[in-house]
Amino acid sequence: QIDSARLWGTIHETAQFGATPKGGVRRLTLSAEDKQVRDWFRKACEEAGLEVQVDALGSMFGLRKGRDMSKPPIGVGSHLDTQPTGGKYDGVLGTLAALEMVRTLNDAGIETELPICICNWTNEEGSRFAPAMMASAAYVGDFTTDDILSRKDAEGVTVAQALDTIGYRGDAPVGRQKFTSFVELHIEQGPILEAESKTIGVVDSGQGVLWYDGKITGFESHAGSTPMPLRRDALATLSEIVLAMESIAKKHGPKAVGTIGEAVIAAPSRNVIPGEIAFTVDCRSADAGIMDALDRDLRAAVAEIATRRKVEVQLDLVWRKAPTHFDPKLVDAVENAAKQLGYSHRRITSGAGHDACNLNTVMPAAMVFVPCKDGISHNELEDATQTDCAAGANVLMHTVLALAGV
Amino acid sequence: QIDSARLWGTIHETAQFGATPKGGVRRLTLSAEDKQVRDWFRKACEEAGLEVQVDALGSMFGLRKGRDMSKPPIGVGSHLDTQPTGGKYDGVLGTLAALEMVRTLNDAGIETELPICICNWTNEEGSRFAPAMMASAAYVGDFTTDDILSRKDAEGVTVAQALDTIGYRGDAPVGRQKFTSFVELHIEQGPILEAESKTIGVVDSGQGVLWYDGKITGFESHAGSTPMPLRRDALATLSEIVLAMESIAKKHGPKAVGTIGEAVIAAPSRNVIPGEIAFTVDCRSADAGIMDALDRDLRAAVAEIATRRKVEVQLDLVWRKAPTHFDPKLVDAVENAAKQLGYSHRRITSGAGHDACNLNTVMPAAMVFVPCKDGISHNELEDATQTDCAAGANVLMHTVLALAGV
Ligand SMILES: NC(=O)NCCC(=O)O
Ligand SMILES: NC(=O)NCCC(=O)O
Repeated sequence: QIDSARLWGTIHETAQFGATPKGGVRRLTLSAEDKQVRDWFRKACEEAGLEVQVDALGSMFGLRKGRDMSKPPIGVGSHLDTQPTGGKYDGVLGTLAALEMVRTLNDAGIETELPICICNWTNEEGSRFAPAMMASAAYVGDFTTDDILSRKDAEGVTVAQALDTIGYRGDAPVGRQKFTSFVELHIEQGPILEAESKTIGVVDSGQGVLWYDGKITGFESHAGSTPMPLRRDALATLSEIVLAMESIAKKHGPKAVGTIGEAVIAAPSRNVIPGEIAFTVDCRSADAGIMDALDRDLRAAVAEIATRRKVEVQLDLVWRKAPTHFDPKLVDAVENAAKQLGYSHRRITSGAGHDACNLNTVMPAAMVFVPCKDGISHNELEDATQTDCAAGANVLMHTVLALAGV
Repeated sequence: QIDSARLWGTIHETAQFGATPKGGVRRLTLSAEDKQVRDWFRKACEEAGLEVQVDALGSMFGLRKGRDMSKPPIGVGSHLDTQPTGGKYDGVLGTLAALEMVRTLNDAGIETELPICICNWTNEEGSRFAPAMMASAAYVGDFTTDDILSRKDAEGVTVAQALDTIGYRGDAPVGRQKFTSFVELHIEQGPILEAESKTIGVVDSGQGVLWYDGKITGFESHAGSTPMPLRRDALATLSEIVLAMESIAKKHGPKAVGTIGEAVIAAPSRNVIPGEIAFTVDCRSADAGIMDALDRDLRAAVAEIATRRKVEVQLDLVWRKAPTHFDPKLVDAVENAAKQLGYSHRRITSGAGHDACNLNTVMPAAMVFVPCKDGISHNELEDATQTDCAAGANVLMHTVLALAGV
């Protein structure tokens, strides 16, 4: 059993780095606050006797030796970056539970057959730089390191510049640290476990993701003197797109979601009809066929709206992540650990994307979920209980011990 | 006849102050660029022999003496501030045509019975500080000077601070400079004169204006893991409000317009359902009964949408300007001047608000319109011909001469 109070203590200690007045965390990837938590994590890893490496995209790896160093380690971990108005648990729980596991093994003097490597992946959230799960995507070869280094945030700062600013552009080439398999603990970020009073979610699949960048070009004109029928209003156009996305997603019942999260009017003024708007779209499904339908229906709706309103709408797919089917043997291993420890559990699909989803494309991977209050995440009110966090960390540890061998 | 080339020259000379790459002007009220054009205007007034006064809200008055100094002057002018992406003519034409009139009278050695006072009113546009036509509204007593001085822009800078920064907080109390009557020349900012091939619009009325500040409070949550039916999406809510405003305005045919010009998501992120949005509404009609209907229908629509979507929507009326009916005798004077000069003309309603609309509530006022290309205004592409501008300036001068007496 891990030390529940110690795990809880580290979660609340690191929540200082970027703490918001409403009790959440603002720790955008590669920001000054991210540097603070990274420095803390590096020191904690070193104090736990781990050998720390940082790769060229800033992902951090802490290695605990095993008896058999000829095989790659079992990877365990998550991320320490947050949303602009994020919570204390998303990513943090999985990373600090991996650290807690190492501390527990050290205290108990347990040696494993295979080595264990605990990870903090750069930019899992995707709100400062696109795509989300950026570093693990580069790790599995979906993008080249140079491509990712050149990605820019809204202020035009590149990933390379941001890494250099906080001193976290490491020496290790991306992908050099191999793993035998990968396990990640995370809060569910949805309402199912809580609604069914289950402690552990055995994650067997994950939704695919489509991300688009959009731009509407209508025509700026005077709000008072431009007759309604002559308008080419970019905001009215966006409004129809938002509602179309909503109804397209609803059409597929619980099997799809669709969101416009960002929308910026170019030169806003009370008495000017908006002429130009930039926006982003996020839509998802665990079913590849539905993903195709979402893409097709969204494009058709946008084309119809643009033609009717005589505006130009550009819609560029900037990221497509296929649905995830986690490795059946690893999923069983998670389920066995939950069973042996006596926790109530159920199989579950992840609504959110995770680094484990990327890693699963090149190695066996699996995930453990614990409930979060009201299913709320990506919100400063995100909450989870100490008992559930500890339960998740125990399932994580026992899964890893089963994979690494004692 | 005024000097058409000289008028055209001053329009293009002042268009440098805040010139944009697309050929427009960005000269927000009380900005550094506004200071530049104000300094230019003060110097030009002084060189034309006018006595310049600046009032406590920065409005500028250049007085040309008449034979009878016991009566207040005829006021003539407009404004020199622009929209964030504004054009070269909106406000500028009316202010510089007033200057051109003085230069023409000086050159011809014409003395008038009543004095003439040419004006540059502060913050007519209303895009940096609300309301629009701010200084003339304070002039007629709709707001106190202190109230206006404390209004803030989006960055939290007050009118008082902005005035002090550019050195244009004058000594003259607001309202001290009296006028016998007021005449303003402006581009139409709508499509009617051009469509009917008329050179002069004799403005007999103006739309009333309703301005609201709105705020939507939904709930931020994860774009991937939050099921569609559980969402309280602030942007989807705004989208319904935008389309409701559009259809409410359309219901009244050409007699109403309605626009959402500004909308800002509080902490935007691609994979976060928007939780909070601030927005503004501008709706107008020349019919007081329709204005009441617009207000009632908008509030009802907003309430229904908010209840159905389980979000909070705050909608505060921040400005209400009644429809304008310009002084019949002055309207006739404008029409007579147009007739005598042989220009094609028609009576017209102003879609936009103007300082003359405010001044008309305390003195006889009227306006002269000239066509602008495709009815486009509040856009960098705003355009007008030298011939039409000169025609408008001539009608303006002959109206003023009729009122001031030669
Ligand atoms: N787990 C999580 O919130 N990931 C962020 C990436 C996404 O799914 O949008
Ligand atoms: N004339 C003009 O564009 N005025 C700005 C105020 C308004 O009507 O919105």
